[in-house]
Amino acid sequence: MKESLDFIYKEQKELSHFGGIAALLGWDQMTYMPSKGSPARAEQISLISRLVHERVTSETFYQHLKGLYDEQNNLSEKDRIVVRKLFHDVEKARKIPSAFVEKMAKTTSIAYAVWQEAREKNTFTLFKPHLENIIELEKQYCEYVKLPGHPYNSLLDDYEEGMTVDVLRKEFAVLRKHLVEILQKITASIVYEKQHPVQMTFDAVQQKQLCDILLTRLNLPLDRARLDVSTHPFTTSLGDDDVRFTTNYQREGFLSSFFSTMHEAGHALYELGILKGEYKDTVISNAPSLGIHESQSRFWENMIARSKPFWMYFTPVFQRIAPDVCKDMNLESWYRSVNQVRPSLIRVEADELTYCLHVILRFELELDLLDEQITVAELPGHWNQKITDFLEVTPKTDRDGVLQDMHWSAGEFGYFPTYAIGTIYASQLFRQFSEDHPTAQDEITQGDFRTISQWLSKHVYQYGSLMTADDIIKKTCGEGLNSKVFITYLKEKYNLLYDV
Amino acid sequence: MKESLDFIYKEQKELSHFGGIAALLGWDQMTYMPSKGSPARAEQISLISRLVHERVTSETFYQHLKGLYDEQNNLSEKDRIVVRKLFHDVEKARKIPSAFVEKMAKTTSIAYAVWQEAREKNTFTLFKPHLENIIELEKQYCEYVKLPGHPYNSLLDDYEEGMTVDVLRKEFAVLRKHLVEILQKITASIVYEKQHPVQMTFDAVQQKQLCDILLTRLNLPLDRARLDVSTHPFTTSLGDDDVRFTTNYQREGFLSSFFSTMHEAGHALYELGILKGEYKDTVISNAPSLGIHESQSRFWENMIARSKPFWMYFTPVFQRIAPDVCKDMNLESWYRSVNQVRPSLIRVEADELTYCLHVILRFELELDLLDEQITVAELPGHWNQKITDFLEVTPKTDRDGVLQDMHWSAGEFGYFPTYAIGTIYASQLFRQFSEDHPTAQDEITQGDFRTISQWLSKHVYQYGSLMTADDIIKKTCGEGLNSKVFITYLKEKYNLLYDV
Repeated sequence: MKESLDFIYKEQKELSHFGGIAALLGWDQMTYMPSKGSPARAEQISLISRLVHERVTSETFYQHLKGLYDEQNNLSEKDRIVVRKLFHDVEKARKIPSAFVEKMAKTTSIAYAVWQEAREKNTFTLFKPHLENIIELEKQYCEYVKLPGHPYNSLLDDYEEGMTVDVLRKEFAVLRKHLVEILQKITASIVYEKQHPVQMTFDAVQQKQLCDILLTRLNLPLDRARLDVSTHPFTTSLGDDDVRFTTNYQREGFLSSFFSTMHEAGHALYELGILKGEYKDTVISNAPSLGIHESQSRFWENMIARSKPFWMYFTPVFQRIAPDVCKDMNLESWYRSVNQVRPSLIRVEADELTYCLHVILRFELELDLLDEQITVAELPGHWNQKITDFLEVTPKTDRDGVLQDMHWSAGEFGYFPTYAIGTIYASQLFRQFSEDHPTAQDEITQGDFRTISQWLSKHVYQYGSLMTADDIIKKTCGEGLNSKVFITYLKEKYNLLYDV
Repeated sequence: MKESLDFIYKEQKELSHFGGIAALLGWDQMTYMPSKGSPARAEQISLISRLVHERVTSETFYQHLKGLYDEQNNLSEKDRIVVRKLFHDVEKARKIPSAFVEKMAKTTSIAYAVWQEAREKNTFTLFKPHLENIIELEKQYCEYVKLPGHPYNSLLDDYEEGMTVDVLRKEFAVLRKHLVEILQKITASIVYEKQHPVQMTFDAVQQKQLCDILLTRLNLPLDRARLDVSTHPFTTSLGDDDVRFTTNYQREGFLSSFFSTMHEAGHALYELGILKGEYKDTVISNAPSLGIHESQSRFWENMIARSKPFWMYFTPVFQRIAPDVCKDMNLESWYRSVNQVRPSLIRVEADELTYCLHVILRFELELDLLDEQITVAELPGHWNQKITDFLEVTPKTDRDGVLQDMHWSAGEFGYFPTYAIGTIYASQLFRQFSEDHPTAQDEITQGDFRTISQWLSKHVYQYGSLMTADDIIKKTCGEGLNSKVFITYLKEKYNLLYDV
């Protein structure tokens, strides 16, 4: 037993190093790599992936682990927790043949390149055969994993362990209905009618200064993390004390870099603060789901950075950094500017209210494709119909429609829902936090976010994967995923903003 | 045989990917990694090193390779070349036990940290026991490798295949004698007496602009390479089309960033241009020695960037970028400024003339330590005596003396000589180039370096490791390492400059 424990801990440690190496390969690719470095990088990434897959699915590893799993009652609590989680992960990984993993990797690698070209040329038909291949592989994958219920559960489970189509259909139906209702009220309002797009433009230097101030206020430790620039902002963890996140100072959208920095900082703070100690370099020192991870970014981006107390602190900061740009701004106009509702075609530019509709649309289409309710050829039409139904906007081109996201080209079916799950979780966490700390708003007006950080650390970070996402939310908020909490939050906020 | 060939080519390919991954881990550590990322990074680097060592020394690999080696007459020319070189490398690697490799890694990892502290605190005694350990390991290493002749040959061979103590002692004795003589003449001259240290200071933005212009003139392809900033400039290759090199805009020394960019660009151009084609991802697509690599950086840094034709082009460029700083400068004053001789304590700040004396000093001390002619305790005294003999300057502190370089703490005995070998090779290549292209100077005055690049490509890059360094120099220059060529070059240049 001792030998098996030594083996599985050593293996987890090396897997965690491989994870850090893979994260660096990915981070560099998105930030600094010269363009022609791509082919070699793809090979390097694939080499590490293969080594990791070989190790995770190796017979020796499995035998050690299975032995421990069968004897779990004789293990210490810590070992039992680690063994259970690890056994669950390994059993799942072993269901997938290596040949399939390679086939998926090759298919998506080609599909991603074609998707980029198709998007650029605005020609969905280029991408169509590749997407068809990928969907066939996704179905095959569901066959291998074969979780109970809807086949899509097997995809969801990779990103949101234990989440099911049944739960999401129910939650998203409620959410969708209310979001459309709230939106219709807003777009019919006088405030909306009089609203103009925000026209302020900050240069890259000002944006950078503002982001730096934000990170200082957040106490984000710059000896353990760093902010760089990439086309699409992201966060990745290269080690317990080495977290990288990115922003983009050239992106469309009002204050995009500021809000994406806040969003990614939320992810980064979670990675930096997540349970370590005796669980360092084990599967327990990871986020239990992408939904929980996204709840951390959305919490900071929406609940905090789009709140009035936040802008009580930041209105004068912006005034100081960019006096010319901000000369006509006050607290009220800032608060309205960062919370403007404006139905649009592009998910990543969507406002807080409409964002989840973009996600639900993708979830519904993924299910329809998997259930063979629609064909890939029909996909653009269905996309355009749905976005019109949801948001009353219609893409003129597939580039602004079905071709806008890279996820499908990467084979990431089942990923999109986590964006909405995280947003809902964030509202649930925020409600609980506000109950626990009714005066925290005053601290935020001083640019002091320590109480929030401490609360998130205690109620989210410190659990690591000791529990599932669902259990963490239940323990912290008294109930599991509940979109009604998010709807209430939105109504309270936006009814006031739009006087409806 | 087919199976064995497939195996060894696949293995070399993966080793080359591992090499790229290791290079990225190192590059990031020196450029962007947050300070607290060190411990995880050390583990990641050590994991990759171990995997590489396991593969290179694996029995399966060896058996395939040995089979091919024994049947080499039945191989195609290309396969024979690859098998021979690879067999040589693998046989050498297999002489070193894994336990020793790990012990060396651990010892130097600790020693490096202690060296940093010792240097900071200016306390050699802190570093002393660690250096003693390292020297014992170096001796042990020589025992394992056991090349003919002096034990130090086994160390040299890692960096400069086939080079021996006998050859270096002979060449360095001549070089040392002449360098000291030339230097004594210069320091006794009237020109030297009247010479003042260059006082121009360029801000970081100007330095960066100048480096960018330089890279443009060199046609350095920025879709295949990039320049970043690190404490100590270096070049590393992450893939055939992904070379990273660095500079530093805050460093001491006149125009340090400009000359180090030129130096590293020389390395980078070599990496980018080195033989690939059918030899891609094989041992043949590597530099045959560090001396050859250094010859490429020194060629550009010294023979080109410290030449008059070069400054005919760059004098007006500097004038344009930094008119205030350069207002009193003309071609003659530029040429003199970048070629000022000034004996100093620090190797990396040394001028072209005195540089090799710093290297010879280290070579002599390494031999004395290995031969037990001196003890580590006596090392600082011997250092100070030698540098006084060579350069008539005496360190006031060990920080400016024996503690200045990191090489010994990293266990890199046998490395220093390659700096001088490269410098001598550079002068030999330059003499040959000047004979082949007597009018190339005119092109340089126009900022046109294409003829040089083409010549280096044809006479150095395109050989990869098809030949040893020695054979390349013999083939290209008609003779092997010959310090007299360098001495002649120096005399012609500096006698004029100092009117001696």
